[in-house]
Amino acid sequence: MQIGKVIGNVWATKKEESLNGMKLLIVAPIDVRDNSEGHPFIVGDLVGAGIGETVIWVQGSMARHASKDINVTIDAVIVGIVDGVELG
Amino acid sequence: MQIGKVIGNVWATKKEESLNGMKLLIVAPIDVRDNSEGHPFIVGDLVGAGIGETVIWVQGSMARHASKDINVTIDAVIVGIVDGVELG
Amino acid sequence: MQIGKVIGNVWATKKEESLNGMKLLIVAPIDVRDNSEGHPFIVGDLVGAGIGETVIWVQGSMARHASKDINVTIDAVIVGIVDGVELG
Amino acid sequence: MQIGKVIGNVWATKKEESLNGMKLLIVAPIDVRDNSEGHPFIVGDLVGAGIGETVIWVQGSMARHASKDINVTIDAVIVGIVDGVELG
Amino acid sequence: MQIGKVIGNVWATKKEESLNGMKLLIVAPIDVRDNSEGHPFIVGDLVGAGIGETVIWVQGSMARHASKDINVTIDAVIVGIVDGVELG
Repeated sequence: MQIGKVIGNVWATKKEESLNGMKLLIVAPIDVRDNSEGHPFIVGDLVGAGIGETVIWVQGSMARHASKDINVTIDAVIVGIVDGVELG
Repeated sequence: MQIGKVIGNVWATKKEESLNGMKLLIVAPIDVRDNSEGHPFIVGDLVGAGIGETVIWVQGSMARHASKDINVTIDAVIVGIVDGVELG
Repeated sequence: MQIGKVIGNVWATKKEESLNGMKLLIVAPIDVRDNSEGHPFIVGDLVGAGIGETVIWVQGSMARHASKDINVTIDAVIVGIVDGVELG
Repeated sequence: MQIGKVIGNVWATKKEESLNGMKLLIVAPIDVRDNSEGHPFIVGDLVGAGIGETVIWVQGSMARHASKDINVTIDAVIVGIVDGVELG
Repeated sequence: MQIGKVIGNVWATKKEESLNGMKLLIVAPIDVRDNSEGHPFIVGDLVGAGIGETVIWVQGSMARHASKDINVTIDAVIVGIVDGVELG
């Protein structure tokens, strides 16, 4: 999974119909010192994440599985909101 | 999913036959400040996107699923046209 | 899909047996101004592509599907030869 | 598979329920001279790895398969702890 | 597929049990001028490759398919040893 921060929302009126009702968030990958890096992804939200929260998401065919709807056309979904990180 | 801008069309007369009838667009990934970055992808269009529009696309085995045709040999399709972005 | 240019051939006598008879080409990703970028891939050829041609290829589990042979151990195949590109 | 070092733990109280009981570690990819490079991943632990250990992990649909639980929503798991590396 | 050079071996006593008996090699991606680039991967060996040889490997769910063992938890395997490259 990847770890990143929710930085925004995105709206798309015209979309593949299976995505209706799926909240789409913009997430930016972060490194372990909380710096953002790389380009952002659009991910579905399964856990009620909000802007500014650090989240974990899965990518690939796993995302459709996680969404519990075999017909949803999605390849990335948030599966957890991070409470804390311990660096060794 | 990734977010990017449609920057062009591509034609291929000689192609795997399952791609006949599938409109192929060139999309360039963008960051949240609308700057283009990275190398472009060729994606199938399911939603009627046009040049200049900001779109969301899925990649991987999900793309074939989205295209509703189990025999189409495609690994990336547009699933939404972006109306707006809210940055937190 | 990715877009790139065929830059060479590769031979491998000792290989996984399902690859016998599959022509393997070296492709280099290009950007929309026809500049090569990134590292090359080895891809199977389904459409009779030759050196110097611009091609489109699929990656991942789709490649095996495209090859019409469920037993071939391949993860990237050319599915189209590009005739032209229109930039908007 | 990728090779990297376990650099920390991550906690997520609010998460997709199938992840309950799965230990999540932060791993940083390393090169063959033991330098860390690239951005970190969050991976499930199947072999009892600890902070500071060098590990191998799989990504993609293989991760769910490795976890022996078809319902777990995970796309990366550690499958081995590295004892030694021989460079030729 | 990717093309690279075998640069070493890796040992892992503590590992997911399905990997027992699978030889694991370290490969470094190369470009067409034989320069190494990018970070190394750990790949299973199906063709008897040795250190210093140039090889082709598949990644993703295809790797498990190639290994002929549906239960092996692997996401990258060598499928060919390169005899020669012709650049056009």
